[in-house]
Amino acid sequence: MKISSEPSVGGELWEMLPVGPRRALAQAAASEFGKRGYHATTTRHIAEHVGMSPAGLYVHYASKAELLFTISRIGHESVLSESSAALEGISSPDERVHALVRSFTIWHAVNHNLARVIQYELRSLEPKHYQVIAAIRRSTEALAAEVFRPLFRDAESLSMHTVAILSLGIDVARWYVPGRSPDPIVLGEAYAKLARNLLRA
Amino acid sequence: MKISSEPSVGGELWEMLPVGPRRALAQAAASEFGKRGYHATTTRHIAEHVGMSPAGLYVHYASKAELLFTISRIGHESVLSESSAALEGISSPDERVHALVRSFTIWHAVNHNLARVIQYELRSLEPKHYQVIAAIRRSTEALAAEVFRPLFRDAESLSMHTVAILSLGIDVARWYVPGRSPDPIVLGEAYAKLARNLLRA
Repeated sequence: MKISSEPSVGGELWEMLPVGPRRALAQAAASEFGKRGYHATTTRHIAEHVGMSPAGLYVHYASKAELLFTISRIGHESVLSESSAALEGISSPDERVHALVRSFTIWHAVNHNLARVIQYELRSLEPKHYQVIAAIRRSTEALAAEVFRPLFRDAESLSMHTVAILSLGIDVARWYVPGRSPDPIVLGEAYAKLARNLLRA
Repeated sequence: MKISSEPSVGGELWEMLPVGPRRALAQAAASEFGKRGYHATTTRHIAEHVGMSPAGLYVHYASKAELLFTISRIGHESVLSESSAALEGISSPDERVHALVRSFTIWHAVNHNLARVIQYELRSLEPKHYQVIAAIRRSTEALAAEVFRPLFRDAESLSMHTVAILSLGIDVARWYVPGRSPDPIVLGEAYAKLARNLLRA
């Protein structure tokens, strides 16, 4: 699963779930939670999104919390795997920064609804679910730090720049409006250049 | 109200409300909504925060929605007035960028709970309230664009950089943890330098 010229627009992301109601409900949850937030969304909203009765949903997911956990895990694992894939075979530090920021930004633009859920609903996860998600987040942060490390002498500066550059990509999920915002690939390229300029300064 | 060496840690921000229960409840709402989100927070959480009964809250605010609107308006007006104040008397384009980004970042670090509410709960506002808030946001965005404009030739590049630099400050509200995150002033200075480097490149 690699972002080359075309981002994977949601399709491949959901392959962790079998085709059918479990996948359709997860996609509907990403859309509904992303639109109005986890707590303001009912299982009825999600069920209706796929033309199912609220009771039908519970055949596939034990609870709204399980749906949140499922899509959070899929989202975080996808960010991590897309980021790793984007770095494959690239050894120049400068080009690694470019590839990582480009991929991370495109992911948050293409999957802005799911991205909003995975970045802003951490506090809505049940504690046992949060543990699992936090571990994936730590892997992604470690990957980013590893990419930025060759460009810094001191740890404090590395940490500050890592946070700042990830902020650029994450915040895309907050403001992205399809049709009105720049094309994901154009934005990814622009932010990758911006990050390289930032690290060169 | 100006951020000089010391940020105004919440105090002055609330002067729009008279000292007493209306102000205390607004501060409690910022803290409680910021912690677990608007929809997951009940008026009981807010009332108990100030040692009041849930019924007592309704003497001062008609609804949870009115509380959200009140603190959203205070927060947005404060960002706008702090940003304007930070620019007073500064004419060099480079120094204006520094002053704006510094002030904007410090605001989001110091007021991270309220900042989370004003940046991530726009969709939770009632439509008539949203109109008022959107107008203040447009003023702040116009101010930022005015500060960055002298550094750009084309409008597209101006718009992309304005969004990116504001993202840095806004996203602070998402990740800021008092005691563990950098001091607001240190962060404000660092992000201001970062923005200048970015615009110089």
